[in-house]
Order: sequence, then structure tokens, then C-alpha cells
Amino acid sequence: MHKGRLEAFSDGVLAIIITIMVLELRAPPEADIAALRPLLPVFLSYILSFVYVGIYWNNHHHMLQAADRITGRVLWANLHLLFWLSLFPFVTAWMGENHFQAAPTALYGGVLLMAALAYYILQATIIACHGRDSILARAIGRDLKGKLSPMLYLTAIGCAFIHVAVAQVLYTAVALIWLVPDRRIERVLAERAAPREP
Amino acid sequence: MHKGRLEAFSDGVLAIIITIMVLELRAPPEADIAALRPLLPVFLSYILSFVYVGIYWNNHHHMLQAADRITGRVLWANLHLLFWLSLFPFVTAWMGENHFQAAPTALYGGVLLMAALAYYILQATIIACHGRDSILARAIGRDLKGKLSPMLYLTAIGCAFIHVAVAQVLYTAVALIWLVPDRRIERVLAERAAPREP
Amino acid sequence: MHKGRLEAFSDGVLAIIITIMVLELRAPPEADIAALRPLLPVFLSYILSFVYVGIYWNNHHHMLQAADRITGRVLWANLHLLFWLSLFPFVTAWMGENHFQAAPTALYGGVLLMAALAYYILQATIIACHGRDSILARAIGRDLKGKLSPMLYLTAIGCAFIHVAVAQVLYTAVALIWLVPDRRIERVLAERAAPREP
Amino acid sequence: MHKGRLEAFSDGVLAIIITIMVLELRAPPEADIAALRPLLPVFLSYILSFVYVGIYWNNHHHMLQAADRITGRVLWANLHLLFWLSLFPFVTAWMGENHFQAAPTALYGGVLLMAALAYYILQATIIACHGRDSILARAIGRDLKGKLSPMLYLTAIGCAFIHVAVAQVLYTAVALIWLVPDRRIERVLAERAAPREP
Repeated sequence: MHKGRLEAFSDGVLAIIITIMVLELRAPPEADIAALRPLLPVFLSYILSFVYVGIYWNNHHHMLQAADRITGRVLWANLHLLFWLSLFPFVTAWMGENHFQAAPTALYGGVLLMAALAYYILQATIIACHGRDSILARAIGRDLKGKLSPMLYLTAIGCAFIHVAVAQVLYTAVALIWLVPDRRIERVLAERAAPREP
Repeated sequence: MHKGRLEAFSDGVLAIIITIMVLELRAPPEADIAALRPLLPVFLSYILSFVYVGIYWNNHHHMLQAADRITGRVLWANLHLLFWLSLFPFVTAWMGENHFQAAPTALYGGVLLMAALAYYILQATIIACHGRDSILARAIGRDLKGKLSPMLYLTAIGCAFIHVAVAQVLYTAVALIWLVPDRRIERVLAERAAPREP
Repeated sequence: MHKGRLEAFSDGVLAIIITIMVLELRAPPEADIAALRPLLPVFLSYILSFVYVGIYWNNHHHMLQAADRITGRVLWANLHLLFWLSLFPFVTAWMGENHFQAAPTALYGGVLLMAALAYYILQATIIACHGRDSILARAIGRDLKGKLSPMLYLTAIGCAFIHVAVAQVLYTAVALIWLVPDRRIERVLAERAAPREP
Repeated sequence: MHKGRLEAFSDGVLAIIITIMVLELRAPPEADIAALRPLLPVFLSYILSFVYVGIYWNNHHHMLQAADRITGRVLWANLHLLFWLSLFPFVTAWMGENHFQAAPTALYGGVLLMAALAYYILQATIIACHGRDSILARAIGRDLKGKLSPMLYLTAIGCAFIHVAVAQVLYTAVALIWLVPDRRIERVLAERAAPREP
């Protein structure tokens, strides 16, 4: 089975998610700059979610680059990931419109956590049908980032009810950790293309 | 005629349908978890429809995998299927916002039924231009699932006016029946790639 | 220059236009079938526009199939067509919500007319860079349908202010004329693949 | 790394941006032509933004045509461009609904400016990994248009608070300058295909 259509469908859904979030930025009826101030939290949460969807697209892109075979199981693991990502516009709007209060901030972290787990499941499903010695498995390696993120999300969800700013700092920190493109896979792919000489 | 553009257009429409449905989940103005409770039925109907669109995408993907030729007739049979699927966001919203009452539940089943018929017509149209001995025709076989689903939808529509929960259980049951990826086509395709030795 | 990206972008825009129109079908707050009656005109105008966008996608697909070269001029002629098609959701909503009154019906025809002219310009631009003897030029031939449609739209716009039902009948009639897939191009393409023997 | 998915994702986002803007054109409840008059500024700002997104798609298409290699850095420079373009629907709506007043007009220019800078960064990033002698670097040449536009945007932002019409004229002028397709790249690509003989 070809992976082209899986990529195309995922790209479509991610492109719509990233663009639909901007619809929450509603043009105010007044025409002065001051009228934009209430939109600032909505805008900030939009930036955070834009970066997260960008990270997911980026890593998804890299992961499928290293995949050769797609099974029915992979298709559903992928849809499961897209489901959690599709909730980004909702939690982004709720968090932004309520100026980063506790409950919306915690729910935002909950969706981040579920998306991270869904990504992990997708990764494990792809590795399962490629074998432990495959490029992808070697590229992922110990997957420190992938294991650290859910723990940071859980910490942030807990912090949201104590001191909400800590949760926001943690979400931003995880985004920054991932902003560095996943060089591991690029490196292993490059090795395959030009095998190291002895 | 190439099937690439048919797949791309269908992927685009399905990606938008699946993502647009989430717009019905409107962020409540209050910032506490209790404010999410009224959204629960909308969320549940969103999950059900997400799974259904996922199933259609999955099966559409498999079916076109086995198709070699695309005619004008196939293009229109495909658009006909997309038309009924495009009504998913409307019936999902109506059913969810009205907490699964009788009429919206029945209409939801009506759209499921029409989409199933449209899928059947598309399948028959593709088989018609590939021949009864084609991979697709052999892969579909007796098509038990395809024949059972419309009957279950009809039953559910009738039940909606008597005991609405039965209809919901039936819709969920049909989704679960289909969640198993269509291994029939995968199997026959695999056979073609590696023909059984005598 | 490759035509792949032109097709992909056009598919994307058409897929969004066709799906966005359904957002005008807003779920009524009541849960009985009678609550759907006011939506009927919106639904009917949705069907009409869905068929028109389907026709444009279909013909666009066929036309680009026969095109080998894409120039900057073609890109802009294509964007010009997409601009007029992007107004479909607006005129469909206005006509449907106002129950097919004169002015919205006439404006609907105006957008149909502009889209038809934009399609004609795109076709002429593609032919211009392929030559009068190209497959496309031969496939189009005298282009009876293409010349008849704008005249029928003009008639319908005039009729809208006298007897609005006549305009609706004309819009439906033109759609039916085009529903037949453009076999001309298919035929000429088939001839190229298997040239007629003397 | 293949550029196909980068193009597909960008096409998806651009297609959604261009189509979502039309949602600001809300069908008025009245059914006479006079009811459309208040929509005129919204429509004009829609046209301007449609042309700008069209220009970006066009130039993006040309630029990637000349690119052979895509790195993680290019992916993020591209997402950065898409971020600023994703704000077009918001600023278009704000400017249109407030009838081209000073602040919305200046903000519109601000987003145009940021998008232009993001495009410049993307271009520089692609050139950086292709080398100064690459097709793209030679095709861009002195990049007069690319350097002129930000200056004109800055002038327009300043003018918006003095005489708002001047800003609108400048935005339209920049669009017209770019409407001419980027023949530089086409020319250099053509040269590569058919190298000039001595």
C-alpha cells in the first residue's frame, strides 16, 4: 500500500486545523488599535498552537519519510492522532478567550498529552511493521524527547490549578524543545544514502 | 485517465468534512470544567462522525487502490458519495445539539444510509468498467458488510422513534463492524503481488 | 513547469468551496422534522451549487489532462476562475436564505456567467500556448455547450426580475446539459492512445 | 528530503486561506441589490487579499520549482511564511468591515510587511543550502521587486494615519508590480533546459 495518500490526507487535515484556528481571531467592530488588546490572549494561544501543529507536521513528515510500508493498522493509528489534533482549535479558543485561566489551560495540556500519546502509538505501529532494525527504529533511538514531553504535559496540567503561568511556561518549553527539527532521522537517512566508509 | 486527481480531490473534501465538524464544538464563555458538560453530546456525536468519515476514507482508499481505470461515470459516482458525506457536519451538529432526540437521530441514520448507497453505487460503477473477474470484484466477494449496513441503518431509523438509544447503539455497532480494515482487498492485492504457487 | 501543483491547488480550493457551502445549513435549535422545512430552499440551492462546482471540477480535470504546458499566464487565468468560483458560497447562501427571490437569483446567475467567462478565458489561454492543432483545440471543437451556457445565464438573469422560476429552471437546465461528462476530450485522448487505422 | 509534501501542505494552507476569506462576505437578510452596498468595502478588500495570496502562491510555486533540496530549516522558514499569510483573513475582515479606516489599513500593511520579510527569509534559506551559483540565486538576481515592496509597505503604513487612500493605492500598486509572473526564474530554468550555445 502506498503512503502517498496517507500523507496527502494528513497534510489536508493539518492544513485545515492550522488555518481554522485563525477564525477565532474575530475582527472587532471598532477601528482603533486599542480594540485589538482583548484579542491578545487569543493571538498568543493561536501562536502556541500554530507552532505545535507545525511541529507535528514536521515530525510526521520525517517519520513517514523513513517508513516504507503502510498497513490498515497504521491508517487507524494515524486517524487517531488526527482526532486529537483536530481538538486543537477548540482548546486554543477556550484557553485564549478565557485569558489562560486554570481549567482551559489544563484541558489544553490534556489534548497535548493525548496527541503525544497518539503520536507515540503511531510511531510504535510503524516500527512494529518495519522491525527493530529498521531505519526508523534506529533513528528514534531512545526517544528522549518523546518520553520527556508527556511528563512535562502532566506536570503542567497539575500546575495549572496551582499557578497557571507555570503551565504556560512548560507548554512553551516543550514547543521549543521540539522546534529543533528531528535531525536524528535526517542523519540516519543520510547515512543510508551515503554509507560511511570504513 | 489518472486516478490521482480523483483521490486528491476526495481526500481534500474528506479532510475538510472531518475538520469542519469540530467547529460545532464552540468554546463556552465560562472557564470552568462544568461549562463543558453541555458540550458532551456534541462531542460524542463528533467522535461517532469522525470514525465514520475515517471508515469512508479508509475504504475509499482501499477501493481505489484496486482500481486501474477511471471514467466520467466514476467521477460522478464519487461526487455523489461526497455529497452525502458533506451533510455529515449538519446532521452531526443537529443530533449533538439536541441531545440525541428522535428526529435528529433518524435523520443522521438517513444520511448514513444514503452515503452507504452512494458508496455501493460507486463500487458497482468501478467494477462495471473493470469486469467481474477484476481484483476489486474478487476482493469484494459477497460483500456481507456492505449489504448488512443499510439494513442496520434502516432498523435504527425505525427504532429512533420508539427507543432512541437503540438507534445510537446500532450506529456504533456498524462503525465497529467497519473499524476492522478491509483486509479482503489487501489480501487479494497481496496475492497479485506474490501469486500463490501451485 | 509542471501542472501537478496547479491541479493540486485548484483541487484544494474547489474542495473547500464545495464543503464550505454546507456551513450555511445551520442546525435548527428544535429537534423535530418540521424545523427542517425553512432550510429546504437553502438545501436546494446547496444541491444546485454542489452540482455546478462538481461540473467545474470535472471539466477542469479533463481540460488539464489534455494540457502539456503551463505558463505564468495560465496560472493567473486559473486563479481568475477560482476567484469567481469562490463567490459561490456567498451567492448560494443569499439565494437560499431569501427563498429564491429576484435579486439574489439574478446575482447567482451573474456569478455563474463570470465563472463561465473565466473558464472560457482559461481554455483560450491554454489553447494559445498549445496551438490550434493541439489535442485540446481539436477536442473542444466548436464548443457549442461553452457558447450556449453564457447566453442561457444572461436570459436567466433577465427572467429573474420578471418570473423568477424561469431563471431557476434555466440554471438547472444548464447544469443538466453539462452533467454529461465532456466525452469530446476523452474521445480525442483515446484516439491519440490508439490512432484510428486507415 | 522530497519537496512534494512541503508544496502539498503549503498549497493546502494557501487554498484554505484564500477560501476562508470569503466567509467574511455574509449574505444579508434582505433580498434587494441595495443590501449589497454595505458589503462593497468587504468585497474590495477580499479582492485585494485574493490577489496577494495568488501572488504568494505563484511566486512560492516558482521558487520551489528551482529548489532541489529541502532541509529542516527550510520547513520552518516556510511555516513562518504561512503563519503571516494565515493572518490575512483577519486583517482583510477588519479593514473591510471598518471601511478602510486608518488603524485597520495600517495593520493590513503590517501583515503584508511581515509576510514579505518571511518570504525573503525563506528565499535566503533556500539559497543558503543551494549555493550562490545555484539557479535560484541567479534567477533572483538583484531582487529589485523583493527589496522595493517592504519599503512601499512601510510608506503605506505611515501614510495610513495621514491620508488613508494613499496607503490603499500603494497596496494596489505593489500587487500590480507582482502580478507580472516572475519571468526571471522561468527564463533561467529555460536556459538550463536548453543551454545557450556559444
